[in-house]
Amino acid sequence: MKYPENERFTVHYIITVNDDRSIEEHASDITLEQTVEVPMDCIPKKHFEDGIIGKIENIQPIEKKSNQFKVSISYRADITGFSIPQFFNVLFGNISLKNNIKVSDITFTDSFRSVFKGPNYGIDGIRKLLGVYGRALACSALKPMGITINKLSSMAALLAKGGIDLIKDDHGISNQEFHPFKERVSSCQEAVEKVNAGRERQTLYFPMVSGRFEEIEEQVQHAIKEGIRGILIAPMLVGVDTVRYIAGKYNLIIMAHPALTGTHFHDPSHGIAPSVFLGTLFRMLGADISVFPHAGGRFHFTEQDCISIANSLRCANGSWKSSFPCLAGGININRVAEITKLYDTDTVFLIGGSLMQHSADISHATGVFMKKIKSMFNEKLCPPEELLASSCEIPSATDQSITPPLMKFENFKWSGRYIEEYKTGPGLSFSGINRQELIGKFGEKTSFGLRYFEIQRDGYSSLEKHVHEHVIIGIRGNGILIKGESSFNISVNDIAYVSPFEKHQLRNEGKEPFGFFCIVDHKRDKPVVVNDE
Amino acid sequence: MKYPENERFTVHYIITVNDDRSIEEHASDITLEQTVEVPMDCIPKKHFEDGIIGKIENIQPIEKKSNQFKVSISYRADITGFSIPQFFNVLFGNISLKNNIKVSDITFTDSFRSVFKGPNYGIDGIRKLLGVYGRALACSALKPMGITINKLSSMAALLAKGGIDLIKDDHGISNQEFHPFKERVSSCQEAVEKVNAGRERQTLYFPMVSGRFEEIEEQVQHAIKEGIRGILIAPMLVGVDTVRYIAGKYNLIIMAHPALTGTHFHDPSHGIAPSVFLGTLFRMLGADISVFPHAGGRFHFTEQDCISIANSLRCANGSWKSSFPCLAGGININRVAEITKLYDTDTVFLIGGSLMQHSADISHATGVFMKKIKSMFNEKLCPPEELLASSCEIPSATDQSITPPLMKFENFKWSGRYIEEYKTGPGLSFSGINRQELIGKFGEKTSFGLRYFEIQRDGYSSLEKHVHEHVIIGIRGNGILIKGESSFNISVNDIAYVSPFEKHQLRNEGKEPFGFFCIVDHKRDKPVVVNDE
Repeated sequence: MKYPENERFTVHYIITVNDDRSIEEHASDITLEQTVEVPMDCIPKKHFEDGIIGKIENIQPIEKKSNQFKVSISYRADITGFSIPQFFNVLFGNISLKNNIKVSDITFTDSFRSVFKGPNYGIDGIRKLLGVYGRALACSALKPMGITINKLSSMAALLAKGGIDLIKDDHGISNQEFHPFKERVSSCQEAVEKVNAGRERQTLYFPMVSGRFEEIEEQVQHAIKEGIRGILIAPMLVGVDTVRYIAGKYNLIIMAHPALTGTHFHDPSHGIAPSVFLGTLFRMLGADISVFPHAGGRFHFTEQDCISIANSLRCANGSWKSSFPCLAGGININRVAEITKLYDTDTVFLIGGSLMQHSADISHATGVFMKKIKSMFNEKLCPPEELLASSCEIPSATDQSITPPLMKFENFKWSGRYIEEYKTGPGLSFSGINRQELIGKFGEKTSFGLRYFEIQRDGYSSLEKHVHEHVIIGIRGNGILIKGESSFNISVNDIAYVSPFEKHQLRNEGKEPFGFFCIVDHKRDKPVVVNDE
Repeated sequence: MKYPENERFTVHYIITVNDDRSIEEHASDITLEQTVEVPMDCIPKKHFEDGIIGKIENIQPIEKKSNQFKVSISYRADITGFSIPQFFNVLFGNISLKNNIKVSDITFTDSFRSVFKGPNYGIDGIRKLLGVYGRALACSALKPMGITINKLSSMAALLAKGGIDLIKDDHGISNQEFHPFKERVSSCQEAVEKVNAGRERQTLYFPMVSGRFEEIEEQVQHAIKEGIRGILIAPMLVGVDTVRYIAGKYNLIIMAHPALTGTHFHDPSHGIAPSVFLGTLFRMLGADISVFPHAGGRFHFTEQDCISIANSLRCANGSWKSSFPCLAGGININRVAEITKLYDTDTVFLIGGSLMQHSADISHATGVFMKKIKSMFNEKLCPPEELLASSCEIPSATDQSITPPLMKFENFKWSGRYIEEYKTGPGLSFSGINRQELIGKFGEKTSFGLRYFEIQRDGYSSLEKHVHEHVIIGIRGNGILIKGESSFNISVNDIAYVSPFEKHQLRNEGKEPFGFFCIVDHKRDKPVVVNDE
């Protein structure tokens, strides 16, 4: 993709100055550290003209805090390579190792939004899928880690029966030997589907996906095959770009979990602000729902932190759909009114442990909780809308059909390959020749291609020349190679070599077909047909 | 894999108590938060018996700090699923969102070390490859981001000429349109190889790998095919498990970069300590070299932080090889003596900007720097050691004639080519195999090579894997292809395909010789012989 070179995005920082250097010096350090990372006197002059260096756009003191400043620095968009790892690098890579720098906001450009699509569903898409409007949604978690798959799936059924909108795995429920991913996910989804089957209202189940690099896509595909519509995923555990990749490739609801992000929020003067990390950035990666601990629970976010995250998730931001804030970390029924007042309708309540404390009848406890939520809003229901096609439309992990391990030979045909028929006709420079493409066009990464050609009695290939070389191995019958001014007879297993730009042609002057392998560079120039005198 | 259920690993925390709850309560919170994440009254009794909950092993006040405590908590090893994402989750997932908890050490078990192999090379392996002993190594960086590929590769050549041991890309040099990964990496490696070709001493070039989820492995493979022996990679940018995967699969030197880790080190009372994150954990992921800013530069690490990281990288830790600490962030020639005193021999100096400030003659400046380092130590040099060749890479005699137009086939020999005799012997990974190099080593410009191998009765090729692919065509007799976990029978004219990094071997269990063509990319990586269990 080609983007305008001069396009710039802007990162807004809060910088706290605790030494005797000026705020301008601190800001200037960032413009270098996050881009060229060399001393000022080593920067080519053209780099400044080209805007490769970060550019200070604005510095403004923060009222009442004599040593704090709002600083806006713009960067050329293309230095991020429009890839998430390098974008995070420009955003906070090296300066994470400095003190007292807080990323408080980011202003993106349209190029970013055309590469990074944001949420697949967003608030509207999830509501359509559930057919639930006008009220906050409720989610609960399958836990604790370590109980049997049977118990987890029974719990899923009970929560669904109680009328919960969403069920997620606890984020510590992974691929442990005592409840392996595939078996567990299939079983929980089946339990939820059974409950859904008997009614119009639907509960969606989101398994936690935290597999290894080499297995995570298989886990996602397994979930999709089971009919699952969304997943729980923690960007800092599996890698931020892994989430972008999965959200971009698969039509899933992405519920993002904040595990391992928290050090950014420990000190208000350092890190990436919660509203940026759990709001803007998770939404950019594709989160339809972002989970975070609400103020007043067992974590330390303030109400202001939480409202800022919700704003970043829901506000207008170019073409990105709005996402749900999902409040967690010690939510119970007594807090519903207070939280509703703060967050309003487009919110997900995550209630875990406090439902479990009613384990005598989880369905009943869930029902009570749902009733409480509904009492706060004017719920409107519609039939759930289907947005997705069937499970046969899962894109395959590899985009092309890969070469089979072995192509068996029989009667000059190879299994898994087809013959492009003998071609003869007026205006063609060749006659009576067919081809089987064997290697090189089926997703292999070889630098060469292997083809089998066969020439009928009296047939011939084009008399041609090109820069790329040919290696020819006789396989069937006998043929003649015209090569420069000479000609050679080729029998079975003879190997011929045609050098660059050497005029050549293959002819069959015998009775049976003449077949040969031809090996060529994959990257090769177009042949020039020689008009023989 | 099956591991003992009762095996436990231990995480050591420093907890600062700033409220009126007891240290026991704080510690107990962690035992639940990082495992079952439910209130105490929801935990099945059997969970305690089974040890699913974290277990407080020790609480000890820190002298002089009345509100700080060392707390050791053990966890059942298998709750991590022996996967890196879930391991990081147990280590610091949710508690990252709490305040005043510092991970200060981890005691692993052997199960971890049998799953996570740690560094491929370590200090000893890198020294062998360079043949440099008895002194610290020196590394420099190609920068600044945004200059042309030509300038980057010229710079690489100049640094290599100056005698630097290692060259890395600046970590902001990614896959930007102005210097795309593949073209840039090929060009820089070629420049370094040219300098290396004329001398015994070798410089190694490590490109920065920060590609997207779906392209990062292709980038790694590209580097390997170019003959590159190591890469620079930032675990927090591409995902911690991505690094573990690449280090585990490819036989590369891994140089780990600390981008985006820094928020953990901002407040000494919170986060994962530098010695754990950049030391123990990066080493666990496979880092042979871990880059971090040395005290006194433009970052804020203390000398004590730095020495602790170096210790964690180099100390005995089960089967894990020791790794190099690599000091960065404003190193210059005037600091060599001081740093040498602090870190001693097994250290890498990273000197970037301060060499560039002598851009009039970077080679000379590098030479001066190398001389300074050598003056501090008793350097011992050996010839650089190469890894063993496999059967498809038996060095061949080079006196064969250039390719004739036609190599006539007779009795499984081709005119103008020599048979490299059947080889069998003690210490070889193959037996009873011979070869005729047919195409690719005789002045042709093909991107591929064509070879004929023949395996005697009961002979076999090396069991090996590599990034480059094989295309195999049966020519004589019958043979068996072991490919991954399957095996296939190959008869005359059957075509087999071996995909990248697939374990494979050819065997002859018949009576007559088994002969086959093998087509490979001309530019290809060295096979890794697999020691079959």
